Amino acid sequence: MPSAVVLLSGGLDSAVVLAIANSQGFKAHALTVAYGQRHAVELEASKKVARALGAASHQTIAIPLDTFGGSALTDDIDVPLDRPAEAMEAEIPVTYVPARNTVFLSLALAYAETKAAHDLFLGVNAVDYSGYPDCRPEFLRAFEDLANLATKAGVEGARFRIHAPLVKLSKAEIIRHGLDLGVDFSLTHSCYAPSPLGKVCGRCDSCLIRARAFAEIGLIDPAQQ
Amino acid sequence: MPSAVVLLSGGLDSAVVLAIANSQGFKAHALTVAYGQRHAVELEASKKVARALGAASHQTIAIPLDTFGGSALTDDIDVPLDRPAEAMEAEIPVTYVPARNTVFLSLALAYAETKAAHDLFLGVNAVDYSGYPDCRPEFLRAFEDLANLATKAGVEGARFRIHAPLVKLSKAEIIRHGLDLGVDFSLTHSCYAPSPLGKVCGRCDSCLIRARAFAEIGLIDPAQQ
Repeated sequence: MPSAVVLLSGGLDSAVVLAIANSQGFKAHALTVAYGQRHAVELEASKKVARALGAASHQTIAIPLDTFGGSALTDDIDVPLDRPAEAMEAEIPVTYVPARNTVFLSLALAYAETKAAHDLFLGVNAVDYSGYPDCRPEFLRAFEDLANLATKAGVEGARFRIHAPLVKLSKAEIIRHGLDLGVDFSLTHSCYAPSPLGKVCGRCDSCLIRARAFAEIGLIDPAQQ
Repeated sequence: MPSAVVLLSGGLDSAVVLAIANSQGFKAHALTVAYGQRHAVELEASKKVARALGAASHQTIAIPLDTFGGSALTDDIDVPLDRPAEAMEAEIPVTYVPARNTVFLSLALAYAETKAAHDLFLGVNAVDYSGYPDCRPEFLRAFEDLANLATKAGVEGARFRIHAPLVKLSKAEIIRHGLDLGVDFSLTHSCYAPSPLGKVCGRCDSCLIRARAFAEIGLIDPAQQ
């Protein structure tokens, strides 16, 4: 079985991606980046998801991106609540973390090289992507080009592949796909503004996108029940 | 004055790069990545260099790449000593850190975005580069393409530039350039295998490359005296 590195956040999307990597016959090494997000509940969720889906290994690396600032996900900035879908699509939100996916993929690439893995999986999505520039297919292609130039493995002839199997799916399609693969969404956590005890708010962009998508397929989000 | 982010290691090359960024009229924000290198003496050197050259700011970010392993610079692997120049050029050495410059540039990009800077400086060198794939000009161009796709600033029209002013210089040329700009090389530290008290070995690739280059211009390396 070839090895792959799967970026695992603890959220809904990356849980489905881990299940997909498994289903494609990869030995999936999950990598969680603790980037100074305010909510440790995400890290707990990533551990539960990795265990439930039988990842070959699960490594967490702490990167204090909060020392740089510039995002509602690392700083003390209020996240917007109760926004309609149109408002979410109109601009890059305050939850944008500067160059986050570039940093995450770089770390995944470093980790992959030590595992002799050439396949990197991540759960970005260009449909419900809320305007994040580093979720676009052209960004992913540029990173693939970079990976082959950046590494000893690339110089020696390996070809890295960035797998973003959700990039063109709607959130409802992602959920359906995850249900087919046996993902337990009650273990996942996506809320931008949970309570101090980790209870989801149900009102931030992320909670609303999940709730609407589950409703679309006639279900209630098990993480918001 | 436009702001720039300068990756500063504490070594000879990045000290010269900081002096160059200053001389080009940039407000230089130095960024040191503490990546689990075994030698804290490098971090001390970076502080001295930033102070001596008058960086606008100096930030250190700790990234535990040693949790991934795979390099003599983070693991307990012996570095080769007393190698002739030809042996250094023959292969990618054990001091290669997987995807290091990709990780470093990603962090510099994230930091730059929070500083509204679009210019990133780093001290890579393709002449004395000892076969590191992520020191090649084609790698740097690929990262520049990526940066413009990866960021909010790029989407909004900014153009990031990766400055690698040393990329085509020999080590002797770099030293001459630094001396012209007033760099105090006694503050810098490049040794791969220092003593527990931080004394340089004089025998690893890095010490030998420095010593030969200083000799070439009729000087003795002040950090090896």
